[in-house]
Amino acid sequence: MAELRVIPLAGIPEVQEGADLAELVVGAVQLVDDDVVVLAQKVVSKAEGRVVRLDDIEPSARALELAGELDPRRVEAILRESVEIIRVRPPLVIAETRHGFICASAGVDTSNAPEQGMLVLLPEDPDASAARIRERLHELTGRVVGVLVTDSFGRPWRQGTTDVAIGAAGLQVVLDLRGQRDRVGYELHATMIAVADEIAGAAELVMGKTGGVPGAVVRGLHVSGDAKARDLAMPAERDLFR
Amino acid sequence: MAELRVIPLAGIPEVQEGADLAELVVGAVQLVDDDVVVLAQKVVSKAEGRVVRLDDIEPSARALELAGELDPRRVEAILRESVEIIRVRPPLVIAETRHGFICASAGVDTSNAPEQGMLVLLPEDPDASAARIRERLHELTGRVVGVLVTDSFGRPWRQGTTDVAIGAAGLQVVLDLRGQRDRVGYELHATMIAVADEIAGAAELVMGKTGGVPGAVVRGLHVSGDAKARDLAMPAERDLFR
Repeated sequence: MAELRVIPLAGIPEVQEGADLAELVVGAVQLVDDDVVVLAQKVVSKAEGRVVRLDDIEPSARALELAGELDPRRVEAILRESVEIIRVRPPLVIAETRHGFICASAGVDTSNAPEQGMLVLLPEDPDASAARIRERLHELTGRVVGVLVTDSFGRPWRQGTTDVAIGAAGLQVVLDLRGQRDRVGYELHATMIAVADEIAGAAELVMGKTGGVPGAVVRGLHVSGDAKARDLAMPAERDLFR
Repeated sequence: MAELRVIPLAGIPEVQEGADLAELVVGAVQLVDDDVVVLAQKVVSKAEGRVVRLDDIEPSARALELAGELDPRRVEAILRESVEIIRVRPPLVIAETRHGFICASAGVDTSNAPEQGMLVLLPEDPDASAARIRERLHELTGRVVGVLVTDSFGRPWRQGTTDVAIGAAGLQVVLDLRGQRDRVGYELHATMIAVADEIAGAAELVMGKTGGVPGAVVRGLHVSGDAKARDLAMPAERDLFR
């Protein structure tokens, strides 16, 4: 196995609605085939105009009831992005998004919004966002790459967040080793590896949160495929922790 | 932020009890200060002799009761490594280990065991293992590095495993950005980043599961510190998903 490189996408200006993210990526790093281009959800959402103004939100009765000390307009935004509320312990609201991801606030976020009083929502369909950006990168460079859209998710049982994939195009998201055997002939223990989430975390290490590095290129992997990040969501009936 | 490199520890032979892992690392990669040396739990456990023979295990009444279709000797090994059984759905037993980690089978594993009929257990104290290896690396090279011991854990809500840190020495495991603000002045959303888990996942990408690459060196980070991987375990009273 060869070495990996994780190259920050540096020097990218504040992203506005309508921005051509592929063009910004190409201006930052010269791509080669098999690169995985990782973009933070926040810039993808901003480019897609997935931003709402708190003042424009009328909280529903359910939002007012759930809110407690929270801003009921923010809770309303979370409810609109959710198909199910999994747990509430203020200030935490853990919800399942329309895409099937379970995360804090259904991905609704105030930090890194374009201005105060704004909320950034997850992309409408992050897999489709990744596919569009991938196609545009091919158009601009002729390179065949993978694209991930990522967000910072907490997890049960462990402190802190790690970045995970919420959108994917042009790569495998899970490496399936079922049936493969180790050197002694035993079937492998960890047989499905969530490589897309590991790539997302690797990219986060060079992205930081306060600076202007909204993504990274991971070079040296050979994980081309055509899975979707949605495939990473565990089907409810197989999940022991809902 | 500079680029990261993830360098596989290739050419390392099958590890025997008593092996000097630091020497094997130094033979594979020339270290520099601030490198993070990542080692799969399996080689650390084998070097420490944390292996048991199934035939030597007498299952207790509780193991026989829990086992169902599972091998009651294996269930007994899991019980001995656990402080609490969190969920059972055969063949899955999710347990909290003595170290405070919640994972499948309390880390007890048959794959990649030295021979058939053997189980590999987690190191007795993986933070101490990491500290010993780190000290020995310093002795051999004069370099000041971080060391992680990692394992593949499943997670609720998402498919597949990602590698996470179960032992750490010489680095921060969580980057705490609480109080820091984004460009608009909002407090950051993802304020505690589990960098050690992201480093563990990045290393897994070059390790594979069937080959002979039991670790990696992650170069280009500046995360020196003195946290323990135990600090990544969420205190029970703050956990919504037990």
